[in-house]
Amino acid sequence: MKDITYPIKGVNLPKTQNGWTKMNKLVSAAEELFSNVSFFETSVVDICKKAGTAVGTFYIYFDSKADIYRYVIETYKTHIRSMLNDSIKGLNSRYEKERAGIKCFVKYAVRNPQVYNVIWGSLAVDEDIFADYYESFASSYARALISSGEELKLSDVKTLSYALMGITNFLGLKAIFEKSTDDEIDTFIDQTVMPLIKNGMFK
Amino acid sequence: MKDITYPIKGVNLPKTQNGWTKMNKLVSAAEELFSNVSFFETSVVDICKKAGTAVGTFYIYFDSKADIYRYVIETYKTHIRSMLNDSIKGLNSRYEKERAGIKCFVKYAVRNPQVYNVIWGSLAVDEDIFADYYESFASSYARALISSGEELKLSDVKTLSYALMGITNFLGLKAIFEKSTDDEIDTFIDQTVMPLIKNGMFK
Repeated sequence: MKDITYPIKGVNLPKTQNGWTKMNKLVSAAEELFSNVSFFETSVVDICKKAGTAVGTFYIYFDSKADIYRYVIETYKTHIRSMLNDSIKGLNSRYEKERAGIKCFVKYAVRNPQVYNVIWGSLAVDEDIFADYYESFASSYARALISSGEELKLSDVKTLSYALMGITNFLGLKAIFEKSTDDEIDTFIDQTVMPLIKNGMFK
Repeated sequence: MKDITYPIKGVNLPKTQNGWTKMNKLVSAAEELFSNVSFFETSVVDICKKAGTAVGTFYIYFDSKADIYRYVIETYKTHIRSMLNDSIKGLNSRYEKERAGIKCFVKYAVRNPQVYNVIWGSLAVDEDIFADYYESFASSYARALISSGEELKLSDVKTLSYALMGITNFLGLKAIFEKSTDDEIDTFIDQTVMPLIKNGMFK
C-alpha cells in the first residue's frame, strides 16, 4: 500500500521515515482486525497489541478508532485507483481500458476479498464514508468516460459509471464465491461482460 | 413484511397468531436496531426493550442474536423477491420484465435505504449469510433468464445475472445518494440503463 500524503481529518501524518513505519504497522493491524473481526468488536488496545505498539503511539497518529478506519478506507481507495490506472496504461480505446480495468479489479477481489468487508462494512460505521467512496469513484469514472466521448452511444455518463461499478463489483463477488481462476475470469469477462458492454454502450 | 413459513436454523416459528404478533414485534425492533445502530452494538436486551417484550419471550423464538439476524435477512429476501415478482406480473417479454424489476428495486431502495445496511452488513456478521443471499438470488435470476432463452444474445446466464444484480444494486445507491424522485429514476433507467441492457444482452 502507498503512503497517503494529503491531509485527512483526525489523522496526523508522520514527519519521519521511522514514524511512517510505526503508523503503517498500526494501519496493517487495524485493517486485519476490521476485516476479520469487525470494526465494532475491535478496540484501540487490540490494534496496538497486534501492531506491537504502545497505546500512546496510536494517539500520536490517530485521534480515534473511527479515524484510523477512515484512513484504512482511504488507503484502499488510493491503492485501487492507482492499480486500475496502471492496468490501463498504454491502451488507447476506452473499450480496451474498460476491459483491462474490469479484469484487474475482479482478479484483485479474488486475492483480496476483505476489500468488500472493509468498504461495504463502512455502511455500518459511517454512511458518509461509504457514500463518499462511491460518489468520488463515480465522478472520476464519469470524467474518464466523458474524455472518450465520441466512442459512446449513451450520454448519461454518471448512470453509466454506476452501472459499470455495479457490474465490476458483483462480478468480483461471483469470482470470490466460485473461487474463479484468472483464466476463468478472463473467459467470463471476454465472452459475456465485454459483449454486454460493447454492444450496450459503445458505438 | 410477510411471515416466513419454512424452517430456519435457530428459529422456532410460532404456532399461534398471538405468537406471530410477538415474534414480529421482536423482528421489527431487531431490524431497526441492526440497521440504525449495528448488529454488534445491539444486544438481545436492547431488542426486547425496543419491542416491549420480556427477554424470556425472545428465547421462545430465537436461539441467539445471530439467529434473529439471519431471520431478518430471510424476511428481506422473501419480501424483495415477492415484490419483484409482483412488479413483472402480466409482462411477456424478458426485456419488459427486466425493466419493471430494475425500476421496482431502485424505487424500493430509495424508500428503504437500510436494505443495504442489513444485507451488505451481513458480510461483517457472517460471510456465509451474505454469500447465500446473493448466490441464491443469482441462481433464481439465471433460471428466469434461461426460461426466456431465445431472446438472449449471450449464453452465460450466471454471469449475466451477476451483471444485472450489480447494475440494479449500484443504481439503487446512485438514487439514494442523489435523492432521486420516481420520475428521475424512470428517466435514467429508460434512457441509459435499458439501452445498455437491450443492445448488450437482447437480440
